[in-house]
Amino acid sequence: MTDLAERVLEGDPRAIARMITLVENNSDEAPELMSRLHKKTGRAQVIGVTGVMGAGKSTLITELALEYRRAGKTVGIVAIDPTSPFSGGALLGDRIRMMEVSTDPGIFIRSMGTRGMLGGLSGAVFDVVEIFDAAGKEIVIIETVGVGQAEVDIIKIADTTMVVLVPGLGDSIQAIKAGLMEIADIFVINKSDRPGFDLTMAELESLVELNVQAGRKRTPILGTNAKERGGIKELVEEIKKHYNELVSSGKLDDHRRMRYETELVEIVRKRLMNLIFDEAVFKDKVDSLVNKIEKKEMGPYAAAQEILSRVLK
Amino acid sequence: MTDLAERVLEGDPRAIARMITLVENNSDEAPELMSRLHKKTGRAQVIGVTGVMGAGKSTLITELALEYRRAGKTVGIVAIDPTSPFSGGALLGDRIRMMEVSTDPGIFIRSMGTRGMLGGLSGAVFDVVEIFDAAGKEIVIIETVGVGQAEVDIIKIADTTMVVLVPGLGDSIQAIKAGLMEIADIFVINKSDRPGFDLTMAELESLVELNVQAGRKRTPILGTNAKERGGIKELVEEIKKHYNELVSSGKLDDHRRMRYETELVEIVRKRLMNLIFDEAVFKDKVDSLVNKIEKKEMGPYAAAQEILSRVLK
Repeated sequence: MTDLAERVLEGDPRAIARMITLVENNSDEAPELMSRLHKKTGRAQVIGVTGVMGAGKSTLITELALEYRRAGKTVGIVAIDPTSPFSGGALLGDRIRMMEVSTDPGIFIRSMGTRGMLGGLSGAVFDVVEIFDAAGKEIVIIETVGVGQAEVDIIKIADTTMVVLVPGLGDSIQAIKAGLMEIADIFVINKSDRPGFDLTMAELESLVELNVQAGRKRTPILGTNAKERGGIKELVEEIKKHYNELVSSGKLDDHRRMRYETELVEIVRKRLMNLIFDEAVFKDKVDSLVNKIEKKEMGPYAAAQEILSRVLK
Repeated sequence: MTDLAERVLEGDPRAIARMITLVENNSDEAPELMSRLHKKTGRAQVIGVTGVMGAGKSTLITELALEYRRAGKTVGIVAIDPTSPFSGGALLGDRIRMMEVSTDPGIFIRSMGTRGMLGGLSGAVFDVVEIFDAAGKEIVIIETVGVGQAEVDIIKIADTTMVVLVPGLGDSIQAIKAGLMEIADIFVINKSDRPGFDLTMAELESLVELNVQAGRKRTPILGTNAKERGGIKELVEEIKKHYNELVSSGKLDDHRRMRYETELVEIVRKRLMNLIFDEAVFKDKVDSLVNKIEKKEMGPYAAAQEILSRVLK
């Protein structure tokens, strides 16, 4: 075990997998190993991909990964999504394509659930990004799905966030209106061969235009047809352009600080919650407080105060 | 302010709105007021409604609420969903219908975002349910959207959880496969007039059948056409049946204990996070630790340990 960090740094896939399992299981060994890995991080470019279900994100990510491979770059993919092909929801055709990808030693794929009591992005996602980074993956892609906290949180990890839509799904544009507008660095309309592409493009363009008139940045919109590899090269170019702007403007450092702060908050949260709600001595106390709440002898806030006064200095 | 709790207990809509604002803003007055309200809770029947975007959940909830009103019951609705009509994403027709509902003093509607650092269900949802309950709302309906932590968490608050699908959206069935199967007490296929209804019903029936063969409960499936009020009476009957089973089997108490425990955890989490990351004295410490992480002088885990050793006994 002593050399696990070493082996991760060498890019050994089995060591990477083992290390991820350790952090997912909150292993006691994880913190020290992660500290050693952290020293070697900061080089990976992190790309977030989000959007509604059925937008073809997994195919798009597969093609993106293959394009980066053709440019000689290594890729780590983490899919945070209960319905992702990576985690078991794929149609047969998708699966076959995924397998092509996953036999390439230059691509490492890991899927994760949205764990945690009151979830959003699992804290282990930060660790996985650090592990990929330390293992020398030049590109790290994070996939999430839906409209929720996980999608808003993705900008705290990713350097560049892509929001993926499809033609004809009225939902897509609604989702954008509902908050994904702000988080997108790049919009992608996938399945560009579908009817309704022009209309969706026009709707999105007018949303972007409104945004520009409000004094915000003009978010680029790209059409892709991932299944036919259409528009993938252009997308890689657009991501590169965004990343270069981040670097030259100094905003990349802000991004990274935000990621570290979010990760720090998440580790502290997890530790405190484990301490209070998982360790036997407190568990009994929590049970007896829940009893009192149930019997109306005490409200939830007063019960919480009792726990806090026990643990805090 | 002293009589705010009193006024909530009397069901005064302005007092309810004010009380919800206090808990959303983490007001110092909230805990004591909530403790007083808690003593008067436990009577409301809590119904959770979740499902993919575009399934017509808001229309369905509106019709459900109106049906309960016709039976003389008062209703509280909380929509946790950035794209809900209740919170601004509605088409014009939906809005008009909503307004009909919201001018009825027997129905109180509140929408909430998915707040919180690493979100899922906002902790304030628990408070809103308690406030509605204390204010004498006999039916409390919680709406969430998508497939994510918030949807899995809904079963921790709701006595009865409904999962809403629509015909023809392949996504729906995928979502079910991906985890909503387990949380559904009742399946609803809305927009039953749409093409593909029979197919979706057949697919869902075979999923339920597989579940039954695996020794689990047979989850009922209902077709509704909420826009035409179709199937609403039958749905109310099915919800009643499920609730009565909970009561007679004693499982309602388990549900309530789970809700209280989740709420307790959430309050403790929020308090600790506020203490560490929002109060000025710690904020400086956090900033300096983030600096050290950025310079690779320290890993995130070691930084977290420094914070913990400062706050914990």
